[in-house]
Amino acid sequence: MSSMAASWTRLADSSGLVRFVDVALRGSGQVMFQNNPLTGLLFLVGILWGAAAAGGIQVAIGATVALVVATGTAMLLEVDPGAFRSGMYGFNGILVGVALPTFLRIDGLFWAYLVIGAMVSVFAMDAIATVLASWKTPALTFPFVLTSWLMVLAVTGFAQLRLGGIAPPALPHVESHAASAAALDPAFLMRAWFQGVSQVFLIGNAVTGAIFVVGLAVSSWRAAVFALVGSALALATALTLGASATAVASGLFGFSAVLTAIALGAIFYPSSLRTTVVAALATIFTVIVQAAMNSGFSPVGLPTFTAPFVLVTWIFLLPHLKLAPVPHQRLAAATDGRGA
Amino acid sequence: MSSMAASWTRLADSSGLVRFVDVALRGSGQVMFQNNPLTGLLFLVGILWGAAAAGGIQVAIGATVALVVATGTAMLLEVDPGAFRSGMYGFNGILVGVALPTFLRIDGLFWAYLVIGAMVSVFAMDAIATVLASWKTPALTFPFVLTSWLMVLAVTGFAQLRLGGIAPPALPHVESHAASAAALDPAFLMRAWFQGVSQVFLIGNAVTGAIFVVGLAVSSWRAAVFALVGSALALATALTLGASATAVASGLFGFSAVLTAIALGAIFYPSSLRTTVVAALATIFTVIVQAAMNSGFSPVGLPTFTAPFVLVTWIFLLPHLKLAPVPHQRLAAATDGRGA
Amino acid sequence: MSSMAASWTRLADSSGLVRFVDVALRGSGQVMFQNNPLTGLLFLVGILWGAAAAGGIQVAIGATVALVVATGTAMLLEVDPGAFRSGMYGFNGILVGVALPTFLRIDGLFWAYLVIGAMVSVFAMDAIATVLASWKTPALTFPFVLTSWLMVLAVTGFAQLRLGGIAPPALPHVESHAASAAALDPAFLMRAWFQGVSQVFLIGNAVTGAIFVVGLAVSSWRAAVFALVGSALALATALTLGASATAVASGLFGFSAVLTAIALGAIFYPSSLRTTVVAALATIFTVIVQAAMNSGFSPVGLPTFTAPFVLVTWIFLLPHLKLAPVPHQRLAAATDGRGA
Repeated sequence: MSSMAASWTRLADSSGLVRFVDVALRGSGQVMFQNNPLTGLLFLVGILWGAAAAGGIQVAIGATVALVVATGTAMLLEVDPGAFRSGMYGFNGILVGVALPTFLRIDGLFWAYLVIGAMVSVFAMDAIATVLASWKTPALTFPFVLTSWLMVLAVTGFAQLRLGGIAPPALPHVESHAASAAALDPAFLMRAWFQGVSQVFLIGNAVTGAIFVVGLAVSSWRAAVFALVGSALALATALTLGASATAVASGLFGFSAVLTAIALGAIFYPSSLRTTVVAALATIFTVIVQAAMNSGFSPVGLPTFTAPFVLVTWIFLLPHLKLAPVPHQRLAAATDGRGA
Repeated sequence: MSSMAASWTRLADSSGLVRFVDVALRGSGQVMFQNNPLTGLLFLVGILWGAAAAGGIQVAIGATVALVVATGTAMLLEVDPGAFRSGMYGFNGILVGVALPTFLRIDGLFWAYLVIGAMVSVFAMDAIATVLASWKTPALTFPFVLTSWLMVLAVTGFAQLRLGGIAPPALPHVESHAASAAALDPAFLMRAWFQGVSQVFLIGNAVTGAIFVVGLAVSSWRAAVFALVGSALALATALTLGASATAVASGLFGFSAVLTAIALGAIFYPSSLRTTVVAALATIFTVIVQAAMNSGFSPVGLPTFTAPFVLVTWIFLLPHLKLAPVPHQRLAAATDGRGA
Repeated sequence: MSSMAASWTRLADSSGLVRFVDVALRGSGQVMFQNNPLTGLLFLVGILWGAAAAGGIQVAIGATVALVVATGTAMLLEVDPGAFRSGMYGFNGILVGVALPTFLRIDGLFWAYLVIGAMVSVFAMDAIATVLASWKTPALTFPFVLTSWLMVLAVTGFAQLRLGGIAPPALPHVESHAASAAALDPAFLMRAWFQGVSQVFLIGNAVTGAIFVVGLAVSSWRAAVFALVGSALALATALTLGASATAVASGLFGFSAVLTAIALGAIFYPSSLRTTVVAALATIFTVIVQAAMNSGFSPVGLPTFTAPFVLVTWIFLLPHLKLAPVPHQRLAAATDGRGA
């Protein structure tokens, strides 16, 4: 593996095209904080698997197109080379590329719309990263969330675009929870556990979730463990609080919590008992924020995307808690190359 | 009084437990900007009075539990000692502790939920204070507002928690104002005047309001005066503009305005004619923002909490207006111990 | 012209009253970034024309009163003299002054309400400019947007104020687009093109739009060209995506895009091919954000005002893209006199 990685790095150094592919794949990997092209490739494989299993591969095509467009846009804009090379300008693009085919029908001007979204995600990334660099805090997936909210919300105003697979706007109401009794079935729990991971890319497929975990493991065992533990903790929290079993089964209470768990448990704070306790509290709170945002966005009919993860992780990262000797150094690396 | 205060300080210096109680009580007092344990104690007495008069003391228990949990969490996190000792990490917790028993039913997992909210309020405080320190502007009660919005909004998604005493989500509509004729009755005005103060802690009880004013007066006559004048000005503004008499009588147009009046008139800017005029404009505008947020939040069925106060006070504090020789020094003290 | 301008400058230097008028007119001109009293005067003429054509001149009176009140408030507060003299404290006021008569009925306490709004716009400007100075990014029209949102939203809570000429709150729904066939009529296109410019001041009148373009041209040919090209591009984008022909004809998809095009194409970034491409992308995206915000605000029944322009321009300005040798110097001038 190590010699394969070395060969790939040599290839990327010598060929512009391979370097572009390398940067794009790292962009895919950065969705879960991994600056690793193999991780990114496995994430694309997981997306393709999930898309094909759901009866169409447009989500995988959308992901690839948007990843290439976002990476290319960043290249043309001559953004910071270090951040570019580590994939920091691609991960919001690929997420826009899975979100739009998931919530819009693939007709009319769909593909042009997706290209615009992928391009805008690069400017949004740079804008938000510039603001947050003041507090040495990373933009996380907020550029994707903001861009996708605007692009999905705009669709009702345009005849050449159409929504699909999204609940209509409604005032918040108390969920019925009749199906909760099913929750203790082991097959249900296993499915919900892995779909919590797969939903990071808006895909409800346990095999995809497993592929994502493998993708994390080839780059960081710690990240893979926190993804699985985070998904399990989210599942336990959602079931304990009495969330809708259908939503839990689809992983919809898991994906933001998985990202919070990886970010706080394995990436931005160094490992310690205290870090782990804080990450657990943040993961539980992410499940609560997921329910809050589900309710808060229902009058405009928008999905939350990964906004619960973004909000909670900012709340727990901004204090730069002295949880161990050198947290600031790691945080500085996360805002790579940006002046405060 | 002064020698009692000196004895208490000596006691707090020598005993860890007394020091903890001292810090917690200062946290209670900081809801209205008073770094004073006696003020905080009187606020708790006022809460207990109001809760008992309303037929239950869960609100007072919630306030106490959340205050202790938030203070303890901040202690375990080893936050800035100066800010900690002056109660800056407790006031958002106690407010979460009165908000949740007010809007949620006390059953199922209620108490666990309240403990999570109180813990999160500490992280939210540190995060928001970190951001606002860039402009030497205090976090005010926004950590409480944000935490409580999320925790109340989430309830509809969970079968083990239930809302109570809160209007269901609805599109904004023009209020009927039939009861406005009652407004000139002196008993009505007196009740509304003091409930404007008591609603700072979400309690509609004139005696509680009077206890709060006494609590302020033992720490700062100026703060007590601005609380009363602010409540009166808010009452006059709301009645002049034609707000619903029921809402006015309950103090619901007063509490944010009271906080704005104290903050701008007695705390953050030094005393002068110009300061007082600006504080009056801000207090009047707070009443308008209260109505705006009532309307804006109705589709999601959320109370505004003290968000009108927070928004207006930020608007009027951020410019650091040169309203007198040395405003920045006072503002710097308000963001105590945080690097810009 | 040049000698007239010189005479006016001499007059403004010698007379306090003329200087006040000069500053107020520059405030009017700054709505489209022109520090030029003649531009400001022509904008007022355009507003008067449009208001009279619509059967009333209250909008023109509102604009003038609010402009005077905002300018006077800033003078009394002794804000930064350089920013004051260039009209930076007037442009949000004049916009509040056209927005309130457009959406509220002129009865009851209307005029007192408008005066409060104009005064608050000055504090909001200073607050938002203070925050954004950290990233050398201008406040744009966000102080107007925020103030007007709050003041319009509050109206439903007050019997002495009434809404008029604004759609009631409703959940977002897919627009019917039956009228789209009419779109290729040249008279329609001409009307929509110029009303895209006139709607910057919330006026739907093609002659007013033409007067505004003349007003821009006397100060900056480049700004006038980008206004016209921006409006045309917005029109083309809205029609291509299938926006409602009625809204397009009224210029409602144009005004924010016009401001984005001027800001990014003619003001904040220096001229180059790359700048122009970026400005075009931002202008197209502004049309999408306009539709998104139309949908997002419908449950609370609020107009978007120029929020789409503000959001998109911030996204594209914050990165301070290295689009040519010296962009930062221009940006620094835009945040005139404010410490970072």
